[in-house]
Amino acid sequence: MNAVLQEQDSGDGSRMRRAGGREARRAMRAAPLAEDVRPIRPGMEGGRYTPLAAPDLERVHEAVLTLLETVGFANAIPSCIEACTKAGATYGEDGRLRFPRGLVEHTIQIAARNFTLHGQDPRHDMVVQGKRVHFGTAGAAVHLVDVEKREYRESLLQDIYDAARIVDGLDNIHFFQRPMVPRDVVDPFDMDLNTLYACVSGTTKHVGTSFTVADNVGPALEMLYAIAGGEEKFRARPFVSNSNCFVVPPMKFAEDACGVLEACVKGGIPILLLSAGQAGATAPAAIAGAVVQAVAEVLAGLVYVNALKPGHPCIFGTWPFVSDLRTGAMSGGSAEQALLTAACAQMAHFYDLPGGSAAGMADSKLPDIQSGYEKGITNVLAGLSGLNLIYESAGMHASLLGFCLESLIIDNDMLGQCLRCVRGIDVSDAALSVDVITDVCINGPGHYLGHGQTLKLMQTEYFYPAIADRFSPKEWNEKGRPDILQRAIAEKKRILSTMFPDHIPRSVDDQLRARFPNIHLPRSAMVG
Amino acid sequence: MNAVLQEQDSGDGSRMRRAGGREARRAMRAAPLAEDVRPIRPGMEGGRYTPLAAPDLERVHEAVLTLLETVGFANAIPSCIEACTKAGATYGEDGRLRFPRGLVEHTIQIAARNFTLHGQDPRHDMVVQGKRVHFGTAGAAVHLVDVEKREYRESLLQDIYDAARIVDGLDNIHFFQRPMVPRDVVDPFDMDLNTLYACVSGTTKHVGTSFTVADNVGPALEMLYAIAGGEEKFRARPFVSNSNCFVVPPMKFAEDACGVLEACVKGGIPILLLSAGQAGATAPAAIAGAVVQAVAEVLAGLVYVNALKPGHPCIFGTWPFVSDLRTGAMSGGSAEQALLTAACAQMAHFYDLPGGSAAGMADSKLPDIQSGYEKGITNVLAGLSGLNLIYESAGMHASLLGFCLESLIIDNDMLGQCLRCVRGIDVSDAALSVDVITDVCINGPGHYLGHGQTLKLMQTEYFYPAIADRFSPKEWNEKGRPDILQRAIAEKKRILSTMFPDHIPRSVDDQLRARFPNIHLPRSAMVG
Repeated sequence: MNAVLQEQDSGDGSRMRRAGGREARRAMRAAPLAEDVRPIRPGMEGGRYTPLAAPDLERVHEAVLTLLETVGFANAIPSCIEACTKAGATYGEDGRLRFPRGLVEHTIQIAARNFTLHGQDPRHDMVVQGKRVHFGTAGAAVHLVDVEKREYRESLLQDIYDAARIVDGLDNIHFFQRPMVPRDVVDPFDMDLNTLYACVSGTTKHVGTSFTVADNVGPALEMLYAIAGGEEKFRARPFVSNSNCFVVPPMKFAEDACGVLEACVKGGIPILLLSAGQAGATAPAAIAGAVVQAVAEVLAGLVYVNALKPGHPCIFGTWPFVSDLRTGAMSGGSAEQALLTAACAQMAHFYDLPGGSAAGMADSKLPDIQSGYEKGITNVLAGLSGLNLIYESAGMHASLLGFCLESLIIDNDMLGQCLRCVRGIDVSDAALSVDVITDVCINGPGHYLGHGQTLKLMQTEYFYPAIADRFSPKEWNEKGRPDILQRAIAEKKRILSTMFPDHIPRSVDDQLRARFPNIHLPRSAMVG
Repeated sequence: MNAVLQEQDSGDGSRMRRAGGREARRAMRAAPLAEDVRPIRPGMEGGRYTPLAAPDLERVHEAVLTLLETVGFANAIPSCIEACTKAGATYGEDGRLRFPRGLVEHTIQIAARNFTLHGQDPRHDMVVQGKRVHFGTAGAAVHLVDVEKREYRESLLQDIYDAARIVDGLDNIHFFQRPMVPRDVVDPFDMDLNTLYACVSGTTKHVGTSFTVADNVGPALEMLYAIAGGEEKFRARPFVSNSNCFVVPPMKFAEDACGVLEACVKGGIPILLLSAGQAGATAPAAIAGAVVQAVAEVLAGLVYVNALKPGHPCIFGTWPFVSDLRTGAMSGGSAEQALLTAACAQMAHFYDLPGGSAAGMADSKLPDIQSGYEKGITNVLAGLSGLNLIYESAGMHASLLGFCLESLIIDNDMLGQCLRCVRGIDVSDAALSVDVITDVCINGPGHYLGHGQTLKLMQTEYFYPAIADRFSPKEWNEKGRPDILQRAIAEKKRILSTMFPDHIPRSVDDQLRARFPNIHLPRSAMVG
């Protein structure tokens, strides 16, 4: 098969020839396209995959209202009971807080929608509305996957900073939620603060993180206000959201997380209302039932937040996970997970609320063919379902227990493919190509190589992966049979040895280090 | 996380305990379920992913009719011109055969639909209708991927037989179209005959193959009639179909393939009408245009077949491929390929014709993370689009240039995940689980482990992969960090050393070997 442009090249006979020309074209492709003509972008509209039919969404909603009204939540803290009962919830003698359907429906009406999750750099702002799709990281892995040694080791604070730096430069990973726990930072306050610092220092994309207890939120806000240049500036463009597990499924509030939630509402931090039940363990084994419970739980959280502060930005974080029912272990890479996540996206659309859920959580321990198909299947379906925020989509292994920096780089290509699928098919008259086909068949040359349409669409309609291999077997052999893991390792090393974000001015960093002597990352690790 | 059944075990305290119990449950799961309660089956209904909106399908159809009427086909052989003009086509002075819209629409009406593609074993019969999904192999790879040596070598006749034997035992690969060319059989007649023999000897699933020239069809039919026990028996249950590239895109007939097509129509062999244009090279670079051309081409073939014999079973084989437009090389693993294939499935549904197209063609040379996501994304979307026959879905690499026996085994799990996605979500009242959630929350125990619903759904709603790894990092480490490629190699060796199909009686095989002394596979290679 000849190359499109080789065909064209032969016309002037000079510009780019054979292998050299091919390399030159590859280099040309490596140059970034203007945002508006790139084949894929953050925030493209999904929605062409719908595992649930429209009447099913109504039935899930009815089941949810019934559960919130009749079963309600246990373990509400006093401030939660106070706020929610004032809004119309009832607190029963059995210690359960119940939510009448009118309250739930009113909450859905007044809840924040169509808002922006900001980056420190406005270029990375994400408008979360409709079926706009964004992919990002998340998790609380306790291991880093060492690809070279093929082993798992404890994850460290430096790994979080490194992951943030890598994500900062990858086009198809749109936000950075803390994916690992720093096992080298033991004290919970130090852990919360250092995790936040590593994230916001490593990337200008939107950051998600969590806090152990409410008391840790104040100091974190001090840090964020300082970086933003003042409280008002942060409140105007909050570039960090709080990943908040306010619920212990099934249908119980988590005391500490609720305290954190209240502090974040006060401090101006958007909240990812996260219900992470596990089908067959802490949620029903029936997929529809796991969706019902997750939606009920997140709506309870939404009532709670809106009772505290109407319209505070929340992400509808229905994250039901899957159990392998033979062992009870989580199976994030399963087909059942793909279905759960896509169904949750549909429920977020049903309420017109910004939805976030999880995909890309491979069961496989390593970046191998199994993790490839697990990530590919779950992520493409999450994207096509039109989920606004797809968490865990890159770098994750072992069903959330291991995070891998090389996988981030490989997954960036995979997410590019998913986004290209989300973009879908142009069916304009020009794209239907009747004139082009007629022209080629009747007037010659009997092929489309070098045709004007081909050249025009080459950069705007086709996605090209950055490190994935499209060589022929012959080329591949001549190049020493390159291995994708080796390429990813090399690229990781290149990034980590050369990319040192400096978006936080030195003077501000001095201020932070003076105020927080418990910042662990040495400045020497943060400059080239 | 405790195991569902560990919970239950503790009830009687004796049956299965800890690791031993877990192994026992795994073994229990390995026992086959009755067909009707298995979570996944051949022929489940897809259709919940629709890249094209309904009005777009009409517009593609209109473009197609215009092209068939105004551009038509070049290079028709005399018998084709005769049959088609008799049916209403016009043969122009420019040597092009044109198809008026009335003829095309009439053909669509009378074409065979809702028929069965038979296996030698009726257990493997496939009813191709509606949005019923089946996955299978295909291709004409010239290399076998040697996973142990990480290299490509020429594919051999024995490899085809081995691939057939492996596919015969894999639940989620439903048919076997010849995936490789035997490079050790040079003579075209010997190649056709030996390929067919290796396929039908290796599996009782439906087989697809191709023939070089019309003269080779007669002897092949002799072989098939002998295996079937007579011509009438074969015609009643044809277990082989002809993969027929009757078109050289754009819009030209292929002389030899048309001769083969006519011989197959006469001999009672169903035909896969295969249009394999490549977007940007032999088809428009615009995805919609590539779909338009493929549909036009296959409809022309359908007119041709139905002009020869109304209602002869044909598969609507729109297989547009994708070029990497930087190099002109094919990119079977691309997102654009996933879109093309799913759009073609929708056009087959639009005509209510049995559709077949290609997915799972990884660009990657090896079974690595790249091939995993390429296969996963393209196959799951083909399945969810409701494509009846998904060719190339297992074992394929290097954009059709390399076939891999180990990948067959790994891909069987991947296709299981795809089929589980196709099955979708049960939204019965029982599945919505309001009673179960209420019971667990109000009456205890506050979790779903060991709940009746959980135990009931464990085998019927959840798919469990055969060789994919769901160990925790701890278990994985204790077991010596198993590698999926090593497991697949071991499983391949086990199958190839133990599985020797004997569905063709020795007496019939004696007959075949006497009639066709050019059968190359020694009988010694076909017995344990």
